[in-house]
Amino acid sequence: MTTPLRLGIAGLGTVGAGVVKIVQTHADLLARRGGRPVVISAVSARTRDKDRGVDLSSYDWEDDPVVLARRDDVDVFLELMGGPDGPAKAATEAALAAGKDVVTANKAMLALHGQALAEAAEAAGRVIRFEAAVAGGIPVVKALTEGLAGNQISRVMGVMNGTCNYILTRMESAGLPYQTVFDEANALGYLEADPTLDVGGIDAGHKLALLAAIAFGTKVDFDAIEIEGIERISIDDIRHAADMGFRIKLLGVAQMTGRGLEQRMSPCLVPASSPLGTLENATNMVVLEGDAVGQIVLRGAGAGEGPTASAVMSDVMDIARGIRVATFGQPATGLQDARPARATAAAPYYLRIALEDKPGALAKIATALGEAGISIDRMRQYQHAETTAPVLIVTHKTTRDALDHARAGFAKTGVMVGEPVAIRIEKL
Amino acid sequence: MTTPLRLGIAGLGTVGAGVVKIVQTHADLLARRGGRPVVISAVSARTRDKDRGVDLSSYDWEDDPVVLARRDDVDVFLELMGGPDGPAKAATEAALAAGKDVVTANKAMLALHGQALAEAAEAAGRVIRFEAAVAGGIPVVKALTEGLAGNQISRVMGVMNGTCNYILTRMESAGLPYQTVFDEANALGYLEADPTLDVGGIDAGHKLALLAAIAFGTKVDFDAIEIEGIERISIDDIRHAADMGFRIKLLGVAQMTGRGLEQRMSPCLVPASSPLGTLENATNMVVLEGDAVGQIVLRGAGAGEGPTASAVMSDVMDIARGIRVATFGQPATGLQDARPARATAAAPYYLRIALEDKPGALAKIATALGEAGISIDRMRQYQHAETTAPVLIVTHKTTRDALDHARAGFAKTGVMVGEPVAIRIEKL
Repeated sequence: MTTPLRLGIAGLGTVGAGVVKIVQTHADLLARRGGRPVVISAVSARTRDKDRGVDLSSYDWEDDPVVLARRDDVDVFLELMGGPDGPAKAATEAALAAGKDVVTANKAMLALHGQALAEAAEAAGRVIRFEAAVAGGIPVVKALTEGLAGNQISRVMGVMNGTCNYILTRMESAGLPYQTVFDEANALGYLEADPTLDVGGIDAGHKLALLAAIAFGTKVDFDAIEIEGIERISIDDIRHAADMGFRIKLLGVAQMTGRGLEQRMSPCLVPASSPLGTLENATNMVVLEGDAVGQIVLRGAGAGEGPTASAVMSDVMDIARGIRVATFGQPATGLQDARPARATAAAPYYLRIALEDKPGALAKIATALGEAGISIDRMRQYQHAETTAPVLIVTHKTTRDALDHARAGFAKTGVMVGEPVAIRIEKL
Repeated sequence: MTTPLRLGIAGLGTVGAGVVKIVQTHADLLARRGGRPVVISAVSARTRDKDRGVDLSSYDWEDDPVVLARRDDVDVFLELMGGPDGPAKAATEAALAAGKDVVTANKAMLALHGQALAEAAEAAGRVIRFEAAVAGGIPVVKALTEGLAGNQISRVMGVMNGTCNYILTRMESAGLPYQTVFDEANALGYLEADPTLDVGGIDAGHKLALLAAIAFGTKVDFDAIEIEGIERISIDDIRHAADMGFRIKLLGVAQMTGRGLEQRMSPCLVPASSPLGTLENATNMVVLEGDAVGQIVLRGAGAGEGPTASAVMSDVMDIARGIRVATFGQPATGLQDARPARATAAAPYYLRIALEDKPGALAKIATALGEAGISIDRMRQYQHAETTAPVLIVTHKTTRDALDHARAGFAKTGVMVGEPVAIRIEKL
């Protein structure tokens, strides 16, 4: 096995440059561990003359990633361009058709086209690996696909978008409103070109959809995820949550129930001292639950050059070592259709309501809750200077149907100012 | 790939019975994921007529594990008997010689004979996998060997003995002395037949030695680990530590330095609110640090039927899928000799000293510390009824040489009662 494993790298942004650095600096280590040298044959990116902090002079250059993907001297095509369609998908398909294995960090492409690509890979006898697509440097795809292969998985959850977690923790630590921190994050280059992908929960939803497919042996079903972003979280919510011992996290949960597959990505309150509650900045955490293993928690950097390149190299080294696992852990043609189920499990909720400051207003709200069958765990009315009184309520366990019922009741009271904010509380 | 993968299981204790349950209950799942059925051909244990909660009637029985290991209808030999030598080692060697792959949960055997066994496996073209030997259900061997294969690993650490962590957390929560909780744990069957393996830090040391070999590409060097158990930890230490915001954990650390490989397993104080500090009962946590990935933290059940069987099945499923990784992640014959280095990095320490209750006693101790170049961060003298005054000191960062110097100074003061207790503080 001394034949080198030859890489073609398309995309030389942060991740691509990080991969080149590892291949260059750790050549001996990689050869020892992989049983064969790992080398780069050719690279491709949108612009050629840009300083990427790495010496690319010894690699061939291709302007077209599709041409790169088909080169005879490429064994593994590294798709590090991103984007669900366009060049990324075209080059991935070309690579598989030309008999190359594919390693990608592209969650959007796999969340939308994973089933077709996995089938194409199988038809070609090749693999698509995507450790870097989920939770950055955390080897969670491997842990779930291989490490827990003996388990019936019941639930997968986690905080998987570093940018959202950065924004939420920065709002809290600096006491800054959402828009200010959003603008900061944008200036720092933390946000995707389309920021909705991050703050709208879509990027994290892509990741959750991929993990759910592995966990439950179902076809990737991104469209069925109930997604809510962090755009409506105010600094007040963060402060009030903190007052009550909680922190707000954008949390994804996928679980198989008797009714079908529940998948949701939404802001949740978690106990401040819980493992999820202590997550700072761009750190990610994934929780895997299986019938034999119980609960496994994995934490690490969710983004950045080194962590993401580490995950890409994990896949490359697997291929060097002859490790070939099906895209979603079992034959793609055997994956079941996911039967999407609306998440109905009862949970306590945090409610923030603004009331007109008149006698009896609070009583009307409490009555509406009671009529919806929702009982109150804690309620606080904060001091206020204006004519609007902010009221916080933590409910006992209730359902979303009951909450919808209560919302309708609130609307009829005539004392509400604006819409209530309701955030699920997860006791992890 | 529809040829079944045929297992021979030697050892039907908790782990063996757990593996049988998974194979029986998840036959379809395993076949889908592994690409082939996983079946059991034969089993072996010390006593045949014992109710293990599983139906073994369809498997052949062998009294001798060595005979089991050589059977023609066994592809993978599962060594789940334990013990560093004796039948476990003999049967493992027999299995390799007969061309079988080996999956084992036996950290003692691998810590002492891992190099020879890995070389034997390579010579036979077979693999030895041991996910279950380290940190129970946490897929840490896989994460380190494969998931971080692109990293130069700098440090591996963790809480890897569930029994010790159970004893320490139970002492704290119930306010009970060491011996009482030790006896409880023994009655509950939590302790190894030789309890020193657990409370003496040896079992955890075995695990650390295995991870270090993978991390640093060095031959397993268990003998070089500086090991200290939890036997000397008193309920007072636990209370005092808690008073100051710390908890005591049996923590293993292996790190590669310019001077060589440092490996130590010892009780440490960690911040109560840190990830390690919040570990309860038999939960394990492993921290892996690499140059690209940064820090990865893995948490899960460190023992028990389900978690350990899950880890065994991870290895079995790897073999079913054709995943074949060298025992320590690279050819055993290429592993370097570990150059053991004494851990000298400075750290703050917790000191508990008992003094004769006389004027000037404390001043003498403070003077001895000053003469050793150790400065004091915090000091407390607790109320006491007797003639001995308990004094606690948290030092600023200092070295073990300075501490030894201080200890010699203490001895000369003539006011010490008994030996001082010194516990390293790790700020994680």
